[in-house]
Amino acid sequence: MTVRFQTFDDTSERAQSAARVVALRAEVKVQNLDGFVVPRADRQQNEYLPASEERLAWLTGFTGSAGAAIVLADRAVLFVDGRYTVQAAAQTDANVFTIAHLVETPPTEWLEHNLTSGTRLGYDPWLHTRDGAERLRKACTAAGAEMVAVEHNPIDALWRDRPAPPSGRVVLHDIRFAGESAADKLARIRTELGKQRTDALVVSDPQNVAWAFNIRGNDIAHTPLALAFALVPREGQPALYVDAAKLDNAVRAGLQDTADVRAPEDLTRDLSALTGTVRLDQTSAADAFTRLIANGGKPTLGVDPITLMKSVKNRAEIAGSRAAHQRDGAALAHFLAWFDREAPKGKLTEIDAVGALEDFRRDTGLLKDVSFPTIAGSGPNGAIVHYRVTRESNRRIGTSELFLIDSGAQYEDGTTDVTRTVVVGEATAEMRDRFSRVLKGHIAIATAIFPEGTSGAQLDPLARIALWQAGLDYDHGTGHCVGSYLSVHEGPARISKLGTVALRRGMILSNEPGYYKTAAFGIRTENLLLVIAEPDPNGAEKPLNAFETLTLAPIDRRLIEPTMLTIKERTWLDSYHERVAATISPLVEDETARWLEKATRPL
Amino acid sequence: MTVRFQTFDDTSERAQSAARVVALRAEVKVQNLDGFVVPRADRQQNEYLPASEERLAWLTGFTGSAGAAIVLADRAVLFVDGRYTVQAAAQTDANVFTIAHLVETPPTEWLEHNLTSGTRLGYDPWLHTRDGAERLRKACTAAGAEMVAVEHNPIDALWRDRPAPPSGRVVLHDIRFAGESAADKLARIRTELGKQRTDALVVSDPQNVAWAFNIRGNDIAHTPLALAFALVPREGQPALYVDAAKLDNAVRAGLQDTADVRAPEDLTRDLSALTGTVRLDQTSAADAFTRLIANGGKPTLGVDPITLMKSVKNRAEIAGSRAAHQRDGAALAHFLAWFDREAPKGKLTEIDAVGALEDFRRDTGLLKDVSFPTIAGSGPNGAIVHYRVTRESNRRIGTSELFLIDSGAQYEDGTTDVTRTVVVGEATAEMRDRFSRVLKGHIAIATAIFPEGTSGAQLDPLARIALWQAGLDYDHGTGHCVGSYLSVHEGPARISKLGTVALRRGMILSNEPGYYKTAAFGIRTENLLLVIAEPDPNGAEKPLNAFETLTLAPIDRRLIEPTMLTIKERTWLDSYHERVAATISPLVEDETARWLEKATRPL
Repeated sequence: MTVRFQTFDDTSERAQSAARVVALRAEVKVQNLDGFVVPRADRQQNEYLPASEERLAWLTGFTGSAGAAIVLADRAVLFVDGRYTVQAAAQTDANVFTIAHLVETPPTEWLEHNLTSGTRLGYDPWLHTRDGAERLRKACTAAGAEMVAVEHNPIDALWRDRPAPPSGRVVLHDIRFAGESAADKLARIRTELGKQRTDALVVSDPQNVAWAFNIRGNDIAHTPLALAFALVPREGQPALYVDAAKLDNAVRAGLQDTADVRAPEDLTRDLSALTGTVRLDQTSAADAFTRLIANGGKPTLGVDPITLMKSVKNRAEIAGSRAAHQRDGAALAHFLAWFDREAPKGKLTEIDAVGALEDFRRDTGLLKDVSFPTIAGSGPNGAIVHYRVTRESNRRIGTSELFLIDSGAQYEDGTTDVTRTVVVGEATAEMRDRFSRVLKGHIAIATAIFPEGTSGAQLDPLARIALWQAGLDYDHGTGHCVGSYLSVHEGPARISKLGTVALRRGMILSNEPGYYKTAAFGIRTENLLLVIAEPDPNGAEKPLNAFETLTLAPIDRRLIEPTMLTIKERTWLDSYHERVAATISPLVEDETARWLEKATRPL
Repeated sequence: MTVRFQTFDDTSERAQSAARVVALRAEVKVQNLDGFVVPRADRQQNEYLPASEERLAWLTGFTGSAGAAIVLADRAVLFVDGRYTVQAAAQTDANVFTIAHLVETPPTEWLEHNLTSGTRLGYDPWLHTRDGAERLRKACTAAGAEMVAVEHNPIDALWRDRPAPPSGRVVLHDIRFAGESAADKLARIRTELGKQRTDALVVSDPQNVAWAFNIRGNDIAHTPLALAFALVPREGQPALYVDAAKLDNAVRAGLQDTADVRAPEDLTRDLSALTGTVRLDQTSAADAFTRLIANGGKPTLGVDPITLMKSVKNRAEIAGSRAAHQRDGAALAHFLAWFDREAPKGKLTEIDAVGALEDFRRDTGLLKDVSFPTIAGSGPNGAIVHYRVTRESNRRIGTSELFLIDSGAQYEDGTTDVTRTVVVGEATAEMRDRFSRVLKGHIAIATAIFPEGTSGAQLDPLARIALWQAGLDYDHGTGHCVGSYLSVHEGPARISKLGTVALRRGMILSNEPGYYKTAAFGIRTENLLLVIAEPDPNGAEKPLNAFETLTLAPIDRRLIEPTMLTIKERTWLDSYHERVAATISPLVEDETARWLEKATRPL
């Protein structure tokens, strides 16, 4: 086993935290401030941060994926959400940081009640969105305090041995996979700017930069992104701001006709020089951008139109995704067959499973990365929704329990994301009941037919009804958009209470209802779906959409209580399994093919 | 037939409109303005306006229930929504007003594109909410123009023969029906103000005034409201602002201990004198309030906490609603039996039906009013969702078509709202298919089981799935809250895409999916539901809610295609019909009882 794309270490530097906070307080004072806010964020609000941007972890020891700290002269507080309260307590020094609940007592509320009049609280305007900064500012103002944008982040002045910023090579994303040239995409973006009476667009989300210019990079874990910005004027040549060291001559030549390549340092100057209406992406543009543009232009915060364009996949991207899912399905079949043989022997650990699955995917010869760190939760660990196994938490997989594995791959032709829950040994009646309810929800989404214009919020309850009827539910959304060899989580639509964006044909979304019994087991069944025109519209009065399931992997029949399924649900499951067998069997070795045959038999 | 609570006349004064607009322009000029905005609204944003507040109808001739006009020196525009484009064209003078679409080119957008720099546009700050005024102001500013609040509404200066403001008598709402004394309600409101750190609450919604002080009035059609305001300080005696002429000695004595009764004129002075944080109801408080309070206090716009309290009915209100629904169900059974006998003769008109239904309800001896003007749409008129029959539109009901009747009653113990669609002659296969799909949606809501905290937006799609599957849908929400001898439409929850408020036990909501085939027929099946604790929670992990159907009236079996219903759906229908028969039969005369027996037979 040679895991390459994932680590299992706890990297907390808890022991250094106290001294670092002391140093930060001194530095803050030098800057004539009384405190400082440290979000877990980089300049582009990336989901995965480069090591050089892990300021929150450096300062506090806390390595979770979401949080913020506020350091004042006499106290320091770390805000984390419900997932991370235990981890945060373990990783931080209780003499230095108190832990607060990010949702129940958010930083804004804390500031309102804890700042005294006249306090000057510093923040780095490059690490907060405008909306985020405004919320904090409002809280400060309510307390009679002042939010002050710093010129230089005080942590950067203190951080010795700070890792160098990433310098991953940029490659051109082949038109075979992209399906549309950068020039054509940019023309469409400009048309959209015209419609929205916008003079220029600042592209601050690196996913959107990658899509618009058909480039991919290697700066961010699990996502082929380059840390780059772009400026697209309604008229004239777009500019791409990216470190020249990342580009070889071929890439430079390829970009030549579509963009002026400029140094990242030039961005500040160029933004200050803008006039007219400038669109900024509300969710990724730094507060600093608004401030720079306001010098001469009119910054307007909103949705970057690229976010929607990117989410609607073209023929090449859809064909690529289908191919990627066949390949990935074969790797997953190998894994599931292997797991079924090995797990009952009682020797496997969660890390073994993660490694084996990565190995099977690497055996395809085309794996670029995993699309996120695999969630491999056995028994009670399965109930921890965002569980990530470390050497400390690693658990031997029992011979009579559930095992939940949520994983994905980055291939050049597509990004995958799939969850299966399988049983080792015998399932209890409760497990089968819960699994069947989750499956009913999964099938309700997979078979939904809905008018054009329907949002994910409208579909979300379909996934929950069977659970609701038993007084059960799950505490996460049902689906998110997935990129094309890009981020496994992308905007703008989602299947959740908050998903108000209409689903469009060509979007790829996950379908992942679940059920979690704390300290006992977790269940999730996840496939990716493509939004398509309903193939049999049959006299419909409005354009109708439906889903095509892209993911191809058996769903554990041993966990299904057949009497709980309707005839329609059984028919769906059997025909899905038939398709899985027909597509995947030719791609796997004999032992797996035999296993697959059994695993996909009709109920 | 003696219809008392409804009229069928077209009251448009189209002919006078041109002269009135000329006069308005002159008056506006005298006030040093270039134009004026005329919303269809009174000072409390009531759904039904007193005649004295129908400024938009006076000016334009348009009598619809929603709209706004903008009059500039050289042009005038009337904004109406899709329901009213035909009616607006017929009722207004095309030489004076152009008609614009309220949703597609709203006033804000029109102002942005049509105002010239320096224009001074007047508005009456008593007739707009703060949010509404701010939106208009923003549009004016974008055009370089200015929004100016007038001291005196120019229309009021011109309107001769303006009807006197209503002076309906106020009565105390008996504790038997209210279930909680005004003193106890006010104590709860004060506790809530304390929790929200609010020093005073301005109660601007007359429904909330009525609920809090246990009073009912007679100023507004179909809703037992007094035009009154209240001011509830966190400490000290609340003030009730109501015309003294509306109160007799007994009512005055009854109010004595809970409120200072003051003249409506005193409100302005009292609001200006406030200090501290003052909560204003976002949806009903006039812009003028914010301006007055800002003199000394801190106005905060939000949700009036009474809106939620009022929506959660207590035992007495629930018992009252059940009794009202039995009484109303008997009246409706009489009507439906009568209709079934008379309609096939081919002589009934829509107005006849409206009159007969009102008569049957008045026969109960307890009818206070209808809860809204009855919608009685035969054949193609059934497809007009907000159809209201007039002498001009009145149609003879055909002997082979659908008839949709949506109506409700005000009784002291409860407010009702019910829609039935019945067939005259033979239904087509299409009608039966559509009716059965609507019924499947209705049953899906009626039988839903959902965790505490679920919003109406989450339930709404359940009502649509069966329609979606055939490419059909309906263009309105599925349900609204209903008052207790108060407004038939109340806040804060609704079953619709926009219903983000969680449903609470004790709320009463409508369940009214439909289907409309333009120029052909309309279908809607509406019952009122009470949110209850799921009676059989069966090991649920979270508190579970369900609905109890309150409305008791047969659903036309002739329109159901039994093969389209699942066993569960048939079981629901049969047991609902059994309950209707058992409850209503003892309350009706023999002929109706015999009809009811047939109408409620198992499928």
